[in-house]
Amino acid sequence: MLTLLHHPLCPLSRFVRLILNEYGIEAQLVEERFWERREDLLLLNPAGTIPVLVADGTPAIPGTNVIAEYLEETTARDSDNRLMPATPSQRAEVRRLMNWFNDKFHHEVSGPLVTERVFKRHMTLEQGGGPPDTAALRAGRNNIRYHLAYIGWLVSTRDWLAGDRMSFADLAAAAHISAIDYLGDVPWTEDEAAKNWYARVKSRLSFRPLLADRLPGIPPVKHYADLDF
Amino acid sequence: MLTLLHHPLCPLSRFVRLILNEYGIEAQLVEERFWERREDLLLLNPAGTIPVLVADGTPAIPGTNVIAEYLEETTARDSDNRLMPATPSQRAEVRRLMNWFNDKFHHEVSGPLVTERVFKRHMTLEQGGGPPDTAALRAGRNNIRYHLAYIGWLVSTRDWLAGDRMSFADLAAAAHISAIDYLGDVPWTEDEAAKNWYARVKSRLSFRPLLADRLPGIPPVKHYADLDF
Repeated sequence: MLTLLHHPLCPLSRFVRLILNEYGIEAQLVEERFWERREDLLLLNPAGTIPVLVADGTPAIPGTNVIAEYLEETTARDSDNRLMPATPSQRAEVRRLMNWFNDKFHHEVSGPLVTERVFKRHMTLEQGGGPPDTAALRAGRNNIRYHLAYIGWLVSTRDWLAGDRMSFADLAAAAHISAIDYLGDVPWTEDEAAKNWYARVKSRLSFRPLLADRLPGIPPVKHYADLDF
Repeated sequence: MLTLLHHPLCPLSRFVRLILNEYGIEAQLVEERFWERREDLLLLNPAGTIPVLVADGTPAIPGTNVIAEYLEETTARDSDNRLMPATPSQRAEVRRLMNWFNDKFHHEVSGPLVTERVFKRHMTLEQGGGPPDTAALRAGRNNIRYHLAYIGWLVSTRDWLAGDRMSFADLAAAAHISAIDYLGDVPWTEDEAAKNWYARVKSRLSFRPLLADRLPGIPPVKHYADLDF
């Protein structure tokens, strides 16, 4: 049995949940308050970050991209529903966009917004808690615009973000967007093509569990779980 | 013929140069002043970052990890000198440590030190230039200590960072350390085991071209190219 240490609104964890759901892999989800830096978490992942995938009898697999590659290598390499294409050049494009969202978008948009609006509520002052930094919120809400435009541009030239099939790139992008959509921070009127792409990913069965997430004290915006938003 | 857009002291570029050298792949090195955000660079890599690997007839491969995976898939998959192990679990450990150095170490140590001491010299004020931020330098020089201790701890339990063979993990770590060693910012007296590990990587033939780098106006510290430092 697999266990995923995660947080419901952590975009990097959401990416792994989508992969698990797409591949039909069952895993127990355990919420990790990573800002508390539990000793047990640090033993599994010295970096102290989530997500971490724990499988019986093997070392823990920490880090969203590392987990994605691991699941592809252990589960889907020969199956039809693989989320990585076959050729090295196509795989490079998927990885480029995976990194775009898991690094760049996370750094510029989803990381600051989720940290300021959700994680900091639970942190003590020593852990970095306190009221949201309004400059960070403003920057995140501003930065998302050019990312939406980039998504819109990509899907105007291709069926899916990285090519003609859905891939890790789409799941990574949708995972990050879903976390800030929960908070109402996605300006959907900005880019029709990006919105239509998100509607396609959002309507997949693998997305349902994410749309059912509810954080105590922080309800989602009205349209969050609406497939016709 | 391959072309690598790089900067001699960019640690992420140095990692790719080491891989190319280990695999015996010839590539033309072209210095990229990425802070100028040349339009040609943005066309090859919309993120505007280096390194970028350009191969005739295929889309550009941007990003140090993406390039590493691409080179492994196209060059070394069946060879004896591969830098990724064979099993998914071992590969996950290599990727975890690759990310440790290319993300975490870069964020906490090598990125700030190289940016403040080298890149900012060439940048205009609009590009972010100016005198080095002493707080950033102090933080980087302080953070490296626990990374050296971590390297020392890893190689006290294994032959190489990620297991019993040299891998991408060692090359990534050594690439970052070499860039700040050029600047004299590695406190080698802190950890004997880490120093011995670095001496082993540094003495490889693949390392020679990096040790021959000289930046105009910024000479390396005396011991930089010395194999017995």
